[in-house]
Amino acid sequence: MDTPAIPSVQSAPLPEQEIHTRRRLLDAAVQIFDRKGFAAASVREIAEAAGVTKPVVYYHFGSKEGLLLAILTQAMHDFQAALDMGVARTGAARERLITLCEDIYRMFEKNVPVVRVAHAVFLGPRDLAPKFDLMVFERRLREAVIRIVADGQQAGELRRTPPEDVALAIMGILEGATDRQMLPDLNQVGTAGLRRILNVLFDGLVTVPSA
Amino acid sequence: MDTPAIPSVQSAPLPEQEIHTRRRLLDAAVQIFDRKGFAAASVREIAEAAGVTKPVVYYHFGSKEGLLLAILTQAMHDFQAALDMGVARTGAARERLITLCEDIYRMFEKNVPVVRVAHAVFLGPRDLAPKFDLMVFERRLREAVIRIVADGQQAGELRRTPPEDVALAIMGILEGATDRQMLPDLNQVGTAGLRRILNVLFDGLVTVPSA
Repeated sequence: MDTPAIPSVQSAPLPEQEIHTRRRLLDAAVQIFDRKGFAAASVREIAEAAGVTKPVVYYHFGSKEGLLLAILTQAMHDFQAALDMGVARTGAARERLITLCEDIYRMFEKNVPVVRVAHAVFLGPRDLAPKFDLMVFERRLREAVIRIVADGQQAGELRRTPPEDVALAIMGILEGATDRQMLPDLNQVGTAGLRRILNVLFDGLVTVPSA
Repeated sequence: MDTPAIPSVQSAPLPEQEIHTRRRLLDAAVQIFDRKGFAAASVREIAEAAGVTKPVVYYHFGSKEGLLLAILTQAMHDFQAALDMGVARTGAARERLITLCEDIYRMFEKNVPVVRVAHAVFLGPRDLAPKFDLMVFERRLREAVIRIVADGQQAGELRRTPPEDVALAIMGILEGATDRQMLPDLNQVGTAGLRRILNVLFDGLVTVPSA
């Protein structure tokens, strides 16, 4: 995709009332996209659920796609803030990596409908997907993890395994835990469980290390 | 869900022509469910794509939901066969676990549209989901991994970490790799990459083990 990853945020500050209306519309859109799917949702029912008229939706977001784009953009900003905080932290790489994963786990936990909508767009029919580079989530997370792993290797704390492989191991474990949040029938891992599973990775499985 | 996990396979053998027709219909249904989504797909276009009439679809599968159920049931049988083979293998637990993950990775790789349709159903609007216990995939995989881990712990090959945590670590890494197959824009891990990442887990990240 050749569109900018994160559309820039509107620069002129909005009156408080408008911010409130935007927030209500975004919340309503997430609920309805999640329940009916993006394709089946209508601007009319989103407007109704938020207690406004259709023109108000068009004024703020331009279209149904604009609503989805705003939801994903907001999620990307929150995600990036968590990554920046994780990279900026000091201390042992092990603790920094585990804390970063816990932060993301909690953020996803609080926003399960948004995560589910994003996944549906990710995996759904390609022609319905909005012009938003969803891969940016994966890329930014990978870059942040690799930076912290490199710090740990330089400090002699972590073995000199290719940081890219370490990142994919950590991201897989995190994804395994967050994906379960979307499936209420499964036992949830929780941040304590996530920490335990990541510690399994740090300490390894074997009684006699091979290298 | 209280429906049987895997509907029993029809007992009377079908004539070769009918098997062929069923196969063609299932292939067409997967393609169309994947492209348009289950909700938007119609029995008419599936019949057309398979070169048969609508009554032929109803004769074999009863409904659009019956088609989806048959697709998921077939996938479950293939998945279970791979798990059974993985559990039955002899040798070091490390190699048995890696080979099992490689087998599943390759099976998913060959069936990306089926995997994507299953995920769309998993994560899509609940009222559209067919009466199929998709959690059975997760449960069976977890049970198989735990059995092999327990073998490795008994043999003194693997540390005495709770097998449930080890299973979630292995499943997360496998899921991280197979989920990427659904996203053609991402670099694919491949079986060699999956083996490398799993080896990171077996050997651990730290220079000085904590226990």
